[in-house]
Amino acid sequence: MSRTQRTGVSIEADLLEQFDELIRRQGYENRSEAIRDMIREKLSRDKLRDPAASAMAAVLVVYDHHHSNLSKKLNALQHSHLLDTICSMHVHMDHHNCLEVIILRGKVADIEQLGHHILSIRGVKLGKVNLISSD
Amino acid sequence: MSRTQRTGVSIEADLLEQFDELIRRQGYENRSEAIRDMIREKLSRDKLRDPAASAMAAVLVVYDHHHSNLSKKLNALQHSHLLDTICSMHVHMDHHNCLEVIILRGKVADIEQLGHHILSIRGVKLGKVNLISSD
Amino acid sequence: MSRTQRTGVSIEADLLEQFDELIRRQGYENRSEAIRDMIREKLSRDKLRDPAASAMAAVLVVYDHHHSNLSKKLNALQHSHLLDTICSMHVHMDHHNCLEVIILRGKVADIEQLGHHILSIRGVKLGKVNLISSD
Amino acid sequence: MSRTQRTGVSIEADLLEQFDELIRRQGYENRSEAIRDMIREKLSRDKLRDPAASAMAAVLVVYDHHHSNLSKKLNALQHSHLLDTICSMHVHMDHHNCLEVIILRGKVADIEQLGHHILSIRGVKLGKVNLISSD
Repeated sequence: MSRTQRTGVSIEADLLEQFDELIRRQGYENRSEAIRDMIREKLSRDKLRDPAASAMAAVLVVYDHHHSNLSKKLNALQHSHLLDTICSMHVHMDHHNCLEVIILRGKVADIEQLGHHILSIRGVKLGKVNLISSD
Repeated sequence: MSRTQRTGVSIEADLLEQFDELIRRQGYENRSEAIRDMIREKLSRDKLRDPAASAMAAVLVVYDHHHSNLSKKLNALQHSHLLDTICSMHVHMDHHNCLEVIILRGKVADIEQLGHHILSIRGVKLGKVNLISSD
Repeated sequence: MSRTQRTGVSIEADLLEQFDELIRRQGYENRSEAIRDMIREKLSRDKLRDPAASAMAAVLVVYDHHHSNLSKKLNALQHSHLLDTICSMHVHMDHHNCLEVIILRGKVADIEQLGHHILSIRGVKLGKVNLISSD
Repeated sequence: MSRTQRTGVSIEADLLEQFDELIRRQGYENRSEAIRDMIREKLSRDKLRDPAASAMAAVLVVYDHHHSNLSKKLNALQHSHLLDTICSMHVHMDHHNCLEVIILRGKVADIEQLGHHILSIRGVKLGKVNLISSD
């Protein structure tokens, strides 16, 4: 964590009042924390638009575990040479469905391609990629 | 426009540096303007989550004007008693396709329902609703 | 409009039932139209991810018309040599605010850059870019 | 998994050709699987718009583990009486940052409120909620 700096911001009084009301409702204790979060989100969105940027990702997969060979296929995809799988977690949703969360590192474009591949597997019902700026 | 107020914000020095670099690239002349824009967007997103909130909307419709009766159907939808159409603009895209932009006022839920209805019409290729907080 | 082809799709009975119920509620008269719309949306999203792709855009700008020089600045931006403005429409929202809808053509990256520049102008309260695949 | 049904869909030949090319690139072996995925996504989006709907969620939290008491606060939030935490996974990102993935069940509105609360905690850098239709 780097040194903290103080900067002044000019805001219309009524905009500030509405902002204070919203962030209080969301649980913030002060404006600085809420503004820092917005800044981090804006920076992160900007970085992750670059297909060549390095990122982490949490990939969510919901699948029917009665489908044969599916966990084998998912496993094979995680060991693609373009991506670096860190860990995964498996959750039993109901009699049919499993949720698997896979954490990995790689280039934004490769991660997105993996997401498409996972969703395309027969038996996979949901495949969602959450990119996280790893910087 | 209401009275402007000045507030202090504490931010880590390296976060601030990256933020300054990004907003300069996006064309901002100062931090306050960029932070005000983020605040307005956050407030607007919060308001428009309420289905009963009043809003304006820009509805975009791309359609094939060779389909019979389509502009008549679009016109009928705009005169629904739940929504208040303000104006519209028609753009010739190519030999087949037209883009129509319809500006209207109404409740968020009614506007979204209209968007679904427009997209469901045969001959309509794209139907997109842009909600704008009217407050 | 090209020749229509018929293709068979295998779907779990309960998924199909829920789908039929949803699209009926959204106003569709038949499944084919709803599936065509999903296909068009998927194709369009894929095309518009390419920063070099040609696109049309509907840019929405909400601004306070009491700010001096703002419409002049907006006008100058529309005449950037990278983009081809087709037309625009101006809507009076309330005593302070105007909504301007600008329709233009250009490369995806240039259109997004314009969106950032417009939002960064002092007095502009909302700047939103709607990309439309122009193909 | 319910009985599979076969339905016919009419699609313009060139739209079908582009669709086939895109889904082949994404890894699909046949059209039915790609169309089923689009249908499931559309249904899921519709269900999760209802604040009162039951859902599962994967909540992602990135935080600086040097902040005192943070994991205690995160833990307390997970034991809110409105939500049912199923499990969580902790990943070491770098010297400062941890990623925590929390899987829980609850009403859509309560899950979203939890997401805001987590992000509002000082030291939390990213808080993202992934809703998953649990039906």
